[in-house]
Amino acid sequence: MPSTVPVVDFWFEFASTYSYPAAMRIAPLAQAAGVAVRFRPFLLGPIFKAQGWDTSPFNLYPAKGRYMWRDLARICAALDLPLQRPEPFPQMSVAAARLTLVGLDDGWAEDFCREVYHAEFGEGRRIDDAAVLAELLNGLGIDAAAAQEKAQSAEIKARLRAESAEAERLGLFGAPSFVTADGEVFWGNDRLEDAFTWAKAPQEVAAV
Amino acid sequence: MPSTVPVVDFWFEFASTYSYPAAMRIAPLAQAAGVAVRFRPFLLGPIFKAQGWDTSPFNLYPAKGRYMWRDLARICAALDLPLQRPEPFPQMSVAAARLTLVGLDDGWAEDFCREVYHAEFGEGRRIDDAAVLAELLNGLGIDAAAAQEKAQSAEIKARLRAESAEAERLGLFGAPSFVTADGEVFWGNDRLEDAFTWAKAPQEVAAV
Repeated sequence: MPSTVPVVDFWFEFASTYSYPAAMRIAPLAQAAGVAVRFRPFLLGPIFKAQGWDTSPFNLYPAKGRYMWRDLARICAALDLPLQRPEPFPQMSVAAARLTLVGLDDGWAEDFCREVYHAEFGEGRRIDDAAVLAELLNGLGIDAAAAQEKAQSAEIKARLRAESAEAERLGLFGAPSFVTADGEVFWGNDRLEDAFTWAKAPQEVAAV
Repeated sequence: MPSTVPVVDFWFEFASTYSYPAAMRIAPLAQAAGVAVRFRPFLLGPIFKAQGWDTSPFNLYPAKGRYMWRDLARICAALDLPLQRPEPFPQMSVAAARLTLVGLDDGWAEDFCREVYHAEFGEGRRIDDAAVLAELLNGLGIDAAAAQEKAQSAEIKARLRAESAEAERLGLFGAPSFVTADGEVFWGNDRLEDAFTWAKAPQEVAAV
């Protein structure tokens, strides 16, 4: 690997269905592409609220929701990922997002994210349940009580708010989103490969 | 080519930005894939209205709109397609859609669709202007006056309404959408190749 590699920020929401396949496939793809990925959890709720939505657009617009679950089923089948709908949908994701920030400091964030997504969309479990999150942490050999206490600190809460504000500042409106060092935004699991390609060789594309 | 080929319905809206690259690339891709495509124009306006939208979601949700134009610029650059924003956006598409139904009877629909998309999004011209549509028809060697008169017939108007109702019945909520003979729906320019793959070899994917 060269001494410097391009960096791509992976902005994700634990409540977001399409973030699930993205989170599961991003690490090996990044390694193969020679790209470094930063995991950046954020909350879509405030962004949705600002545009008048009080729940997922997949609930607000039923035809779109029905399509999304079918499309996700096809995607997961192709990737050999299990898929079950969590109830309720969307899940409250703030606890898992705060824990991920703790994990970013302590070196276990990426494994934890994959465990959360697997529990939520692979097994249909509730990720707003502290006991479920503790089980996932313990399964990774992490001191769950200590991590969950840190996740409740004012510093972590403020950091998650700041990350969500940064997501909005970047123009993000959905998850997953991938942002390159030069500020190019790619939205959706479909655009992961495009983001890596751009990060390695930015294109000249005229504004329209 | 075998004596029977799988059929994919290409549902598109002339006002839809992502229908532009799809319309431009679908014919050669279909030929290479050994798939027959049926062009099916419809109107998204009534579907959007039913869910409370009085214009394009790209206007209603500015962050999404800004992203869409940038994403479309990248897609068009990669395909070497010109791109200009038409004013106003979205364009009123009913006249072009009715003319396409006339063209489906008379054998010139696909060429006409490409001309309309090129004028609208390649050159930023108005497609709600009868003189522009007449120019495009004449450029294809079609009797514009006769075609535009047919397009105003009660039969053509009723057919377009019926097609739009069928799109809604199929669960379509955006364009372009691709529908296989077994009723599988693929939404978005991104899913064109997936629709062809499915049409040739439908998968077993469990409902979720």
